Amino acid sequence: MTFEGGDGSGKTTQQGILADWLTDRGETLTRTREPGGSELGLELREIVLHRRGYIAPRAEALIYAADRAHHIATVVRPALERGEVVLQDRYLDSSVAYQGAGRVLDGTEIRDLSLWAAEGLLPDLTVLLDLHEGEGRGRLDAARDRYDRLEAEKSDFHGRVRAAYLELAAAEPERFLVLDARRAIDDIAADIRDRVEQLIDARA
Amino acid sequence: MTFEGGDGSGKTTQQGILADWLTDRGETLTRTREPGGSELGLELREIVLHRRGYIAPRAEALIYAADRAHHIATVVRPALERGEVVLQDRYLDSSVAYQGAGRVLDGTEIRDLSLWAAEGLLPDLTVLLDLHEGEGRGRLDAARDRYDRLEAEKSDFHGRVRAAYLELAAAEPERFLVLDARRAIDDIAADIRDRVEQLIDARA
Repeated sequence: MTFEGGDGSGKTTQQGILADWLTDRGETLTRTREPGGSELGLELREIVLHRRGYIAPRAEALIYAADRAHHIATVVRPALERGEVVLQDRYLDSSVAYQGAGRVLDGTEIRDLSLWAAEGLLPDLTVLLDLHEGEGRGRLDAARDRYDRLEAEKSDFHGRVRAAYLELAAAEPERFLVLDARRAIDDIAADIRDRVEQLIDARA
Repeated sequence: MTFEGGDGSGKTTQQGILADWLTDRGETLTRTREPGGSELGLELREIVLHRRGYIAPRAEALIYAADRAHHIATVVRPALERGEVVLQDRYLDSSVAYQGAGRVLDGTEIRDLSLWAAEGLLPDLTVLLDLHEGEGRGRLDAARDRYDRLEAEKSDFHGRVRAAYLELAAAEPERFLVLDARRAIDDIAADIRDRVEQLIDARA
């Protein structure tokens, strides 16, 4: 299963709580993430993040897809084949939401590219921790009279990412569990647990 | 325009002769190659070629596609927009012929991936220097009584690459100029020149 949502939405916290609960139940887990969930992925990530100078948008998308292809083939599929539960921080929905929201590339193409890279692997469950656009910004607003242009653009970008996520969730309601990230941590954790329990029972 | 063919087919020699001729005619040239025709490409190539350990086949294909995307966007398109003639050593036909012939990946998928990376850019002319399978092997045969398994596999692989190239050429006869690489260098050069002259005249 995968976790999606903006930075600060509580993904890491919720993965930790769920991991403890699953381990207590006797499940064997692999916790991993993209990008950078494999050694090759880290090298590729290094190139994308720390390289000086321009990288063509399609080249960047392809490098992330290469990371995905290697990670899925060498880390995730082997874990699934061993019968483990895989908890993954970010997967193809992140690519579609972020790269697609960057306006340069088309979300459908990014999705097709990701699915080709991963040989069609989709998670049984994707938890989307939905952060309302205003939420992360409250403190910032208090400190300033108005947004400068950069902040306005950022807000616009985050709004597009959020809209893209919600659109993806609406298109695959069976795969997605959308939870309001502003709720109490324990309430969110309980909802995730309920859904995961259903999946595990269905599997048994 | 692009040059394709196996190693030892004379691609470099013929590109040099054509480059001199074009320069004498007053054309401005960009000579380049894939993989590794850009700085980012060299870093990616380094990862693919010199990394220890396994790389998943799709990851490798995606890294080559990333190299292509960046190279086309930052080197080839700008040169074409400046009105230059681009002579390129290997392009998407190499990917299809070599990666496809490796049997793991499907040639059509590799082609689609390449075209997505390059935003559909195809050369006006692709010179395929066709090397008959037996050709590079004559001396080897004389020195040994029989092929060992590895050599037989290599021969099989090269046969598949050659077949893939010829298939691509047959599918796009207008783009390809297929020349027997065993002919005299000057005869091959003259045939290439004739075809390039037609293209330049048609452009004028």
